[in-house]
Amino acid sequence: MNFSQKIHAELVGVGYEIINGNILDLNSPFLARKLMLLGLEVKKITSVGDNDVSLAEVISDAKEKRGVIIVSGGLGLTFDDITKKVVSRVLGRTLVLNQKVLDDIENSLKVRGVESSPGFEKQALFPLRSEPIPNISGIAWGFYIKYKTAHFFFLPGVPSELEEIFENGVVPIIEREFNLSGTPPRYLFKVFGLRESEVERRLQDMLKESSEVRFSIRVEFPEVHLELSGLGNSERSQEVITKIAVKVENRLFPYIIARNDETIESVVGEFLDKNGLTLFLAESCTGGLIGHRITAVPGSSTYFLGGVIAYNNKVKEKALGVSATTLSEYGAVSRETAIEMAKGAKTLENADIGLAVTGVAGPGGGSEDKPVGMVFIALYDGESVSCERFRFYGDRDEIKSLSSYWALELLRRYLINIGAKKDQNICCN
Amino acid sequence: MNFSQKIHAELVGVGYEIINGNILDLNSPFLARKLMLLGLEVKKITSVGDNDVSLAEVISDAKEKRGVIIVSGGLGLTFDDITKKVVSRVLGRTLVLNQKVLDDIENSLKVRGVESSPGFEKQALFPLRSEPIPNISGIAWGFYIKYKTAHFFFLPGVPSELEEIFENGVVPIIEREFNLSGTPPRYLFKVFGLRESEVERRLQDMLKESSEVRFSIRVEFPEVHLELSGLGNSERSQEVITKIAVKVENRLFPYIIARNDETIESVVGEFLDKNGLTLFLAESCTGGLIGHRITAVPGSSTYFLGGVIAYNNKVKEKALGVSATTLSEYGAVSRETAIEMAKGAKTLENADIGLAVTGVAGPGGGSEDKPVGMVFIALYDGESVSCERFRFYGDRDEIKSLSSYWALELLRRYLINIGAKKDQNICCN
Repeated sequence: MNFSQKIHAELVGVGYEIINGNILDLNSPFLARKLMLLGLEVKKITSVGDNDVSLAEVISDAKEKRGVIIVSGGLGLTFDDITKKVVSRVLGRTLVLNQKVLDDIENSLKVRGVESSPGFEKQALFPLRSEPIPNISGIAWGFYIKYKTAHFFFLPGVPSELEEIFENGVVPIIEREFNLSGTPPRYLFKVFGLRESEVERRLQDMLKESSEVRFSIRVEFPEVHLELSGLGNSERSQEVITKIAVKVENRLFPYIIARNDETIESVVGEFLDKNGLTLFLAESCTGGLIGHRITAVPGSSTYFLGGVIAYNNKVKEKALGVSATTLSEYGAVSRETAIEMAKGAKTLENADIGLAVTGVAGPGGGSEDKPVGMVFIALYDGESVSCERFRFYGDRDEIKSLSSYWALELLRRYLINIGAKKDQNICCN
Repeated sequence: MNFSQKIHAELVGVGYEIINGNILDLNSPFLARKLMLLGLEVKKITSVGDNDVSLAEVISDAKEKRGVIIVSGGLGLTFDDITKKVVSRVLGRTLVLNQKVLDDIENSLKVRGVESSPGFEKQALFPLRSEPIPNISGIAWGFYIKYKTAHFFFLPGVPSELEEIFENGVVPIIEREFNLSGTPPRYLFKVFGLRESEVERRLQDMLKESSEVRFSIRVEFPEVHLELSGLGNSERSQEVITKIAVKVENRLFPYIIARNDETIESVVGEFLDKNGLTLFLAESCTGGLIGHRITAVPGSSTYFLGGVIAYNNKVKEKALGVSATTLSEYGAVSRETAIEMAKGAKTLENADIGLAVTGVAGPGGGSEDKPVGMVFIALYDGESVSCERFRFYGDRDEIKSLSSYWALELLRRYLINIGAKKDQNICCN
């Protein structure tokens, strides 16, 4: 198989909010990446308003094509959810009630204790000769229609629902209809601390010679994502891509913070859990963001005790035991304060590790000495303490985000070293 | 003027990185918003790869239309920058060298001390009867072509260059060609606590009779956004939309949590600030998310003292003073614990308000008595304490998000009541 024989795909997004520029269309990039990994090639992405004429025009064009067309949005209950009506008219397929789907929707509403909205029966109407695709977290089911050589999928526009339906409902149908045997092998590396251009530079020779593996590099601020996907899933493909993945690992060490579905917080969590360590935070400029991220991981209560959001200096003194002298002599944003915060955090609940962040998130509050974006991150484990100073650039949100990333990254590197020391002890004793 | 008389617009983005899902297309949302504010109506957004056939198809369709078509990308120097070639072919206009532009580009390179790239003269080629549009920060100039009733603008894809060229080069031409002046009025309401269908039900009659105002309802989980936009910016349009906005406010009270650029955290922050009140948090299942949101607002340090992330019961006891008896008798997820957490939060740093959240975020940790999604939120102001019990549905992330929303919403309603009481005092004393 080569790229020109690839199955073509088109994406259509429906909704005024997209063509008004009020929300970013995140569905199309998601679908484009996923389809590429399945081996399909996206040729065109179109967005139209919740407007009969524009949508009809697009579907009418697409129905004469060969390949996969995924239409998202416009399947809800409100007056501007017009997709089904338009599809029915343009493809000439009457809408009929699917009683089984109606029962399923009613049941799921009951289970969740939600009152049914007036007119929700509309959700069980589908064009003739279409295949409903279940939505486990909402009432807008998707559906599949084959029309000549065009394979249409209609999905709800809510990203979380669309993603779930795509994985569990659309992929199996595409695999069935096009005889795709399983997904080609794939590696996703999440890089932090290197710029996109530097990632590209380090892999330059590999990018050029990649006839059997497709590379994709993209920025997901503040991470850079590198994705490798093979062309088939033969044993040989598997071997080739695995070899390349190992090479990539070496070139990008130690900046790969997570792989595939992992996040830096899940990686850090696994390290803590495996080593039986507990963590307590002292957050100033991040305001709780680090705690929020750590607790995004299910089961984090086994290693995360909690933290103090020490936004005000009084809280730094009273709850964390930072000395008034340190605060007045060096200021709240200083190495000295960060270290005392980390020590206070470790001690307060007798955690194994105390991690502290203090800095200037801006836009106000900066000075010549301590400009906006200056951040100190300290880690204390009862024996030794470390503290790093950073200067971040960006708006308030970006500075908070970068601060939380680097706090997690310093923790990750600390935990890797612990692992390395342990391994040494094991092999040397 | 009514909607059907609006000038139509279409946007076309060119580049594989967009249809591969590797970068988000930020140009289209930017252009869509700007055109809407100019009074134009975007009907369709299309993205294609750097591919002769797809781009030719799109331009060929567009050339028979009436209105504005903005094509971005594919104007650079690399092999896949094909826009000019395709335009020349499809619109039948030969590319000719514009010596004046060539001189300008050479000069600007000299001024910036940049070496000229090989083949950069290509940048001074433009289709016959087109109007070059200067690019002050790059060498890829844009250009304008009128073709029958279609007004084509071709712009470079680099967002910063595109934005600059749009404002300084495109807007003046659109205003000139269509005799435009000024922006139509617009209102955005952010609703929380009502479902999309319920928002629609409450406004049903208004949605139907809206010949002068356009309504758009969309879900931005967990908010519902309602947007009104007028048709022109005459005094009469202003009056009509203001009247409708007041009606909307009444129908949706008290569920409108923010307007236009406000967020619930900025609204709550303003209330606290205006009333000179301080806040301290006790977060369990939200893990720091409420603090993170409150500190997203610049200047929040004036009213936000900080908080305790009491993930572990020991932290609830030791840092917040929740009694061991309460914890063992009622459990960590209970009204009693939430109330003691709120009291502890208020007292710890002598804040005016203590706000506490405890619940089961899942997916583990639920029981029959205390299922996943059960959350208690308590507020204590030194005089009275209130506590609400919720049962949320969704994944861990959604339950954390809903918990943080309701905590901020209960705080908002509390602050509104304070405001109301104050007003009463003023009028009654």
